[in-house]
Amino acid sequence: MARTSGSHSEITGPRILEAALKLFAESGYAAVSMRKIASEVGVQVGALYNYTPDKQSLLFGLMRDHMEKLVAAWDQETRPDTPMARLEHFARFHVGYHHVRRDAVFIAYMELRNLTPENFAVIEGLRSTYEGKLEDILEEGARNGSFSVPDAKIASMALIAMLTGVNTWFRETGRLPLEEVQDIYWEMTRKAVTA
Amino acid sequence: MARTSGSHSEITGPRILEAALKLFAESGYAAVSMRKIASEVGVQVGALYNYTPDKQSLLFGLMRDHMEKLVAAWDQETRPDTPMARLEHFARFHVGYHHVRRDAVFIAYMELRNLTPENFAVIEGLRSTYEGKLEDILEEGARNGSFSVPDAKIASMALIAMLTGVNTWFRETGRLPLEEVQDIYWEMTRKAVTA
Repeated sequence: MARTSGSHSEITGPRILEAALKLFAESGYAAVSMRKIASEVGVQVGALYNYTPDKQSLLFGLMRDHMEKLVAAWDQETRPDTPMARLEHFARFHVGYHHVRRDAVFIAYMELRNLTPENFAVIEGLRSTYEGKLEDILEEGARNGSFSVPDAKIASMALIAMLTGVNTWFRETGRLPLEEVQDIYWEMTRKAVTA
Repeated sequence: MARTSGSHSEITGPRILEAALKLFAESGYAAVSMRKIASEVGVQVGALYNYTPDKQSLLFGLMRDHMEKLVAAWDQETRPDTPMARLEHFARFHVGYHHVRRDAVFIAYMELRNLTPENFAVIEGLRSTYEGKLEDILEEGARNGSFSVPDAKIASMALIAMLTGVNTWFRETGRLPLEEVQDIYWEMTRKAVTA
């Protein structure tokens, strides 16, 4: 039965976000109506508008939430002493964090095109913040002689693209466990930025 | 004025593909109707069905065309003597070829989800063919001692993700010319697979 009561909003909120994420990832933002999201949750469309002003806010909320949690998760990780150890930690963290959030990662890249300019600027800012964490590690390592990186900004974007790419092919049921995949990607990451 | 005459099919075909590519890239496959594509081209929707049986065929045609041309373009490139020189050629070719086809590359990754299983298998096959070209180079180089690659298949996917990532940020109007970007990515590619 459809639930429309405001008293369910604390339960409904996460379910709305979960449904929106699933549907946006399946069909793309532009093809998914508020009515479709409501139907997926099992509420009336009016209940959705109690929770969110519009579909753009849902998309923006999902993307901002993903990026903010990513940055916060990295900030909460222990910080090894050397740039080399920090880079290893980053490479393994990035692969591990992203591969269990495939829909959110997919949306965060694919639906940038559908954000309003103001919302796009916020998401781009969060992405820069995260990329900046890697850039800082590369610059510290370049200064102390651990790394050889002509352009830390470009190197950080290149490495993040490589590491995120694991999501396009890695499956838990595949021939390699995640730890081995992390070993291989860390080795390539390390070599790519050392002399 | 809308053109519906069959005699225009040779002119209309490329324009339909161009319009479909643009609209799919902007809004996503699921959000774009045949009517919308017809309107973008300036023909009646019936004229579209003279050219293609359905929207799935349009999407598949675009993706297959992109992948087949990519493989053919690489096969037509000169083939340097050594695995190291071939890898350099591949890295520079990949970045150069992809950055001028951003919509097609975007679609080729994003809309895999919207292909029928049969069509998906064809596109995956073409992608494997292309990735196999790089894998072969890495394996040859590993055999003759030029490269140190524990898993050529994974290394080829990792490098292709890194190189394709240029599309997410590189713009002709940016701070670096393409040649310098190719230099940086080639350097990282080379180091990632050497000892």
